[in-house]
Amino acid sequence: MKKLINAVDDVVRETLEGVAIAHPDRVRKLDDHHILVRADGPVPGKVALISGGGAGHEPAFWGGIGDGLIDAAVQGEVFTSPTPDQILACLRAADAGQGVIQIYNNYTGDVMNFDIAAEEAEAEGIRVDTLLVNDDVSVEDGPTSAGRRGIAGNFFVQKVAGAAAAEGKGFEEVLAVGRKAISELRSMGMALAPCTVPAAGEPTFELGEDEMEIGMGLHGEPGVSRRKLEPADAVAAELTTRAADDLPLAKGDTVAVLVNSLGATPPMELYILARKVHAVLAERGVSVHRTYAMEAATSMEMAGCSVSLFRLDDELTRLLDAPADAIAFTQC
Amino acid sequence: MKKLINAVDDVVRETLEGVAIAHPDRVRKLDDHHILVRADGPVPGKVALISGGGAGHEPAFWGGIGDGLIDAAVQGEVFTSPTPDQILACLRAADAGQGVIQIYNNYTGDVMNFDIAAEEAEAEGIRVDTLLVNDDVSVEDGPTSAGRRGIAGNFFVQKVAGAAAAEGKGFEEVLAVGRKAISELRSMGMALAPCTVPAAGEPTFELGEDEMEIGMGLHGEPGVSRRKLEPADAVAAELTTRAADDLPLAKGDTVAVLVNSLGATPPMELYILARKVHAVLAERGVSVHRTYAMEAATSMEMAGCSVSLFRLDDELTRLLDAPADAIAFTQC
Repeated sequence: MKKLINAVDDVVRETLEGVAIAHPDRVRKLDDHHILVRADGPVPGKVALISGGGAGHEPAFWGGIGDGLIDAAVQGEVFTSPTPDQILACLRAADAGQGVIQIYNNYTGDVMNFDIAAEEAEAEGIRVDTLLVNDDVSVEDGPTSAGRRGIAGNFFVQKVAGAAAAEGKGFEEVLAVGRKAISELRSMGMALAPCTVPAAGEPTFELGEDEMEIGMGLHGEPGVSRRKLEPADAVAAELTTRAADDLPLAKGDTVAVLVNSLGATPPMELYILARKVHAVLAERGVSVHRTYAMEAATSMEMAGCSVSLFRLDDELTRLLDAPADAIAFTQC
Repeated sequence: MKKLINAVDDVVRETLEGVAIAHPDRVRKLDDHHILVRADGPVPGKVALISGGGAGHEPAFWGGIGDGLIDAAVQGEVFTSPTPDQILACLRAADAGQGVIQIYNNYTGDVMNFDIAAEEAEAEGIRVDTLLVNDDVSVEDGPTSAGRRGIAGNFFVQKVAGAAAAEGKGFEEVLAVGRKAISELRSMGMALAPCTVPAAGEPTFELGEDEMEIGMGLHGEPGVSRRKLEPADAVAAELTTRAADDLPLAKGDTVAVLVNSLGATPPMELYILARKVHAVLAERGVSVHRTYAMEAATSMEMAGCSVSLFRLDDELTRLLDAPADAIAFTQC
């Protein structure tokens, strides 16, 4: 395991301390918690949004903290759900009196812990509801989830729900925008090479020198096909087609595209993939309103990518294009 | 070699096509050239800025194209300087009649080719001058450069010179800002694991399973020390101290910090490093105005990082904080 870290037990705390020290104008870290909250929050009168999950997916989930996206994020240990007490502390810190919507990806541990925390918060008089992201079309059930997993598409849910909340929309309206976003969102990923969870010290899976796995999850969960590495165009076409068929996308539809790096896959490869994603969509008569090629949800140093397709109507287009300013996505 | 690419000879063209297809509102690609220019350029009345160099360092150099940074970028093949005719085409395309300043890193091939192109452009009546970035303090001369190499600090030169040009400053003033930026800028990098140049098919260097190399260059050029991997804090302290001593930074100084990923090193590790960079600077009595932890100049999938320190006065602070909007650094 070759990583630029210190003690393996300190990686999450030190990462979050680093973010808070690097961006004091944007976030502060809650003492004794793996929680970052926006520096100028809670914003009076605004419905609050939080996100969270296991660490190791940076810049998810705190990368979205800022104006027009989310208000706070809570992290568990690497690839481990945050505990209910951590999530409860995050809900309390984020609430401005208008309630909190928690946006997280569909993993069994997260669902259990966010549910418990929500109940406890509601018992304290904090209104809470959930946007459960399940954009990964690759498998229906697996070792870590009942139903589909959530992956990089989470970014789009944060973006449009965050924009609605920033506009001053009420709790029900923000929730409705988020639910619509989830219903219009599909992703599929693949992996070339594993990552190592620091506390485990061993790669999360093995792949041959010439192999790839289509549909593999963010934590190395099984995908749908392990086979010889193919050219980028074939990979991009397969991921795009699977996601598009699932929506399904029809001629005349408009989407936003996210080509996400799992960590080690560099911008060069993301844009080579993006080129083919556009070609496949053009063949189907689908327009692309906007393309993101970046790290939205990594698996530390895993090599691989995912493609997310987000079908847009006028409302979602407007919210996607609304101004925003967040740690990971506004860097100059 | 495990990469998401198609034919090895097509990686640069397909990358640039992907960028242009993904961001048609921001850039267009010149036909038959490895050149991207801003979609709304040339901007009348503005001094133009270009950057460029070998491919494989994405988002360098085109990632800075946009309002408040640069106007165009020219790429060679992977880790190979663009040819004089490509650079000349870029100078022609960027010029709005106020001249063009070319910002590039100090490598022998680049210096030769950008110099030839500048002479040819001047013979055509285009005013051209150069900002040669040489921020890497690790070695004074090497196989690829006479004098110090340029690495990720290039971002800061683009940012402040770009802001000055966007404000409407004249050619000499923009050049003077850029020269001041270079004089106030120091970086140092290190590597954990190599990358593979697609056309070569072999890793650029070998490092043992428990080894790192301090001071290694973006193309695998020799550094100053190859030894057993140390904790992130020790690495961050060494890089920061070497760069700070070289300026030298004194108590009361203020800097901007860039912790750059060479590709495979994920945000988690960058922020663990950033935390220690801040601690080292605080011990020296140096204030940090702003911190960037991102991919500014990668070496494809190389694992490793660099730390850049950019000493600020009032003018450089104002220009660094001026609004900007560029492909790689404004993503939401």
